[in-house]
Amino acid sequence: MIGFRPIFIVIGMMLVTLSAGMIIPAAVDAAVGHADWQVFTVSAGATLFVGISMTLTSRSGEIRLTPRQAFIMTVLSWIVMTLFAALPFHFSELKLSFTDAFFEAMSGLTTTGSTVIVGLDHAPPGILLWRALLQWLGGIGIIVTAIAVMPMLRVGGMQLFRMESSDQSEKTMPRATQIATAIGGIYLGLTIIWAVAYKLAGMTGFDAVVHAMTTLATGGFSNSDASVGLFDNTAIDIVAIVGMIVGALPFILYLKALRGDVRALIFDSQVRWFLTIAATIVLIATAWLWLSGQMGIAPALRHAAFNVISVMTGTGYATHDFGLWGSLALPLFFFTMFIGGCAGSTTCGIKIFRFQILYAATRVQVHRLLQPHGVFIPYYNRRPVDDEVIISVLSFFFVFGLCFAALAIGLGLVGLDFLTAISSAATAIANVGPALGPIVGPSGTFQSLPDAAKWMLSVGMLLGRLELFTVLVLFSPTFWRG
Amino acid sequence: MIGFRPIFIVIGMMLVTLSAGMIIPAAVDAAVGHADWQVFTVSAGATLFVGISMTLTSRSGEIRLTPRQAFIMTVLSWIVMTLFAALPFHFSELKLSFTDAFFEAMSGLTTTGSTVIVGLDHAPPGILLWRALLQWLGGIGIIVTAIAVMPMLRVGGMQLFRMESSDQSEKTMPRATQIATAIGGIYLGLTIIWAVAYKLAGMTGFDAVVHAMTTLATGGFSNSDASVGLFDNTAIDIVAIVGMIVGALPFILYLKALRGDVRALIFDSQVRWFLTIAATIVLIATAWLWLSGQMGIAPALRHAAFNVISVMTGTGYATHDFGLWGSLALPLFFFTMFIGGCAGSTTCGIKIFRFQILYAATRVQVHRLLQPHGVFIPYYNRRPVDDEVIISVLSFFFVFGLCFAALAIGLGLVGLDFLTAISSAATAIANVGPALGPIVGPSGTFQSLPDAAKWMLSVGMLLGRLELFTVLVLFSPTFWRG
Repeated sequence: MIGFRPIFIVIGMMLVTLSAGMIIPAAVDAAVGHADWQVFTVSAGATLFVGISMTLTSRSGEIRLTPRQAFIMTVLSWIVMTLFAALPFHFSELKLSFTDAFFEAMSGLTTTGSTVIVGLDHAPPGILLWRALLQWLGGIGIIVTAIAVMPMLRVGGMQLFRMESSDQSEKTMPRATQIATAIGGIYLGLTIIWAVAYKLAGMTGFDAVVHAMTTLATGGFSNSDASVGLFDNTAIDIVAIVGMIVGALPFILYLKALRGDVRALIFDSQVRWFLTIAATIVLIATAWLWLSGQMGIAPALRHAAFNVISVMTGTGYATHDFGLWGSLALPLFFFTMFIGGCAGSTTCGIKIFRFQILYAATRVQVHRLLQPHGVFIPYYNRRPVDDEVIISVLSFFFVFGLCFAALAIGLGLVGLDFLTAISSAATAIANVGPALGPIVGPSGTFQSLPDAAKWMLSVGMLLGRLELFTVLVLFSPTFWRG
Repeated sequence: MIGFRPIFIVIGMMLVTLSAGMIIPAAVDAAVGHADWQVFTVSAGATLFVGISMTLTSRSGEIRLTPRQAFIMTVLSWIVMTLFAALPFHFSELKLSFTDAFFEAMSGLTTTGSTVIVGLDHAPPGILLWRALLQWLGGIGIIVTAIAVMPMLRVGGMQLFRMESSDQSEKTMPRATQIATAIGGIYLGLTIIWAVAYKLAGMTGFDAVVHAMTTLATGGFSNSDASVGLFDNTAIDIVAIVGMIVGALPFILYLKALRGDVRALIFDSQVRWFLTIAATIVLIATAWLWLSGQMGIAPALRHAAFNVISVMTGTGYATHDFGLWGSLALPLFFFTMFIGGCAGSTTCGIKIFRFQILYAATRVQVHRLLQPHGVFIPYYNRRPVDDEVIISVLSFFFVFGLCFAALAIGLGLVGLDFLTAISSAATAIANVGPALGPIVGPSGTFQSLPDAAKWMLSVGMLLGRLELFTVLVLFSPTFWRG
């Protein structure tokens, strides 16, 4: 028997937070006199009611979750939040179908950034703000989950970060709460700084706030169908590039840096790998754009840096339809989608630390081939990594491949062409945002896809966001038997 | 210092065998009065001369290879054989460029089956026979390598098969030679049976011999631009389907079966998994062809079975341009390419046993997530698998993904479109044969690709054929330092 009471309490509290979030777009719509303020207010009321009911009816002495309960809580909370977050999309002036509303909300909360809305430039401010808020909440949600829940669940090698977040000392719930609160503060502070920077770079106040939220969440919702390309402003591009990188680094290191340990941030091997890989891909793309005569070197660097960082971190902004950058562009961006940022950031994808573990394990493998009787130990961040973590990471990579293949084949089944199917599957499971090709590429939307495809992609986004295993264990018979 | 003498002796002996092989097309061309008989004779003479020189000048007491020497021998022998095998293509009436000749020879010896020759229907018989012979030699070559060399090298989990091939007893070189000879006999016997079967099913004697060789080698070279589709004959299709399956099972089990242990073949878990996966994909493709109204159920089953088995085993015959089977076809065939057959067969790709290990490891992973303190052990064929093998297999999967991505990006760099680049990379590294799309799909050829792409694909075929690590260790600095 799995006790659902503590799960309902936590989800109830989250719904109360979500309902508070709905008040903000309600206020904005009311201020500009847009009728959608009523939709937000009613949605907030309904969400608040359900949230309070869940919390009150499930009251219990203390909240202490078993791993089993933690799995259910994580998956269920994301689904329930998405359902309620979809309400304003469905009932607002845009009148999205239930499928579209769910897709947009899932894309928001998972910080993916794929959209089904055409005509963002004329969308009411409340809806635009709501999309940004969802990504912003999803971003901090996933950081907290990564710090407080995932290491306990040991999903896909996340147990590596148990020691880091607890500084070798016993991990206790209050300590996790304390860290989560501190990181929430940092996240809010960074968002304010980026809003100011965007404003100084030339955005309106509204655009600055929306983009600050979706930049640090590496979410990628923008206020225009042309994404950040609308502004065509180098200063804005630079603010965005730096912001996406900041969003892609481990937030726990910012906390350490603020406490005086700046070296932790600078010498972290995950950070260095991330920057090195990103720089390499940016240079390849720049050289390609420049040498093939498509752009001068300065605009080539600017557009390459912006769009590569955007795709690699899974943000999903675009300043250009990079699908039209010639034959190198599609395969390069396709594989870049999978990389992701650092663990404990707002990014998704396979993530840098997994590549480090895979590289270390493969290196040891090669040494073993040459000296079968030698003893070789893989290292991560100057600490030895045991076999359990390696197998955990490697099986994540395998399951990632399987889920990607299944999703792409499923999308083919419902009629999508090869490029659309395979790149949509990748963009969903890696939580990037735009896919590739004329339909779902950076200058397209997911609007025209059949409903079945949108549901599959929603599942893909959830799977990717929760590191696959968190969702997949629920389908294991032993999960419910034990 | 690595001693090259024993390596040269082995390669020299292989060249002598290759030169003997060249006599066969020489004889056939002479019999039909085609001038290419001279090309084959001269090539045979040159190959024989070099082979004998290498063997004689390197004479030593006994041949006993260290792992380091075995790696070099395996890679070098494949490259040297390809160079000499390319001679007839370059100098024959077809006058292939050196790049094309090398590509065709590599595609033959690696049993890939990609071709650059247009107009096979009017090609001289010597060349057609030569292509088939290369695949046939490559097929037995890889079985022997997989049985005698790979387990020693512990490449990508192949150490699993050390015990199997040596029946738990001490492994000695004479014993491996004995097994290899017995399996060579079985291979030859099966080829004769299939040649007779093809003849009875309606092929000419020449076509029957060629197709028997390329079927059991899961190679896929055919004598027509229309591949096996030319015959449009259900009996031939069935003979081919069964033959491709026979070529995809572990040949060591045929030896056991002949010695009376038929249960070993029937109850082998790798065989069962292979048949189950193949049947599942065939059923999906059949249902799709039938339900979408493209074919009646009988032809749907026939074409689905033929083409799915052909792609999955990496044979590469086609009876239909399956790229035109609607939106499901491309993603389904794309991912099917990677699967491959069983270890110790003539197939390539990731191979079934790796999926079994990956599945077992992932299953244990899920159990560990739920019961962090439980002890769970993954099994393969009812034997426990240790962590070393798991990590070995999992890192193979990771390196496979990396090589595939690098190859696809490289092909994009030299100008191939997305579908052509990504499917060519897959077909090369998994040694399938045709790729997807209008250019390199089942009804196209690799002729029109730029030379740079053909060289990259040749490297990809070699990498895939030799289980990646065999080639990649040569690029490790420690390999040459030790």
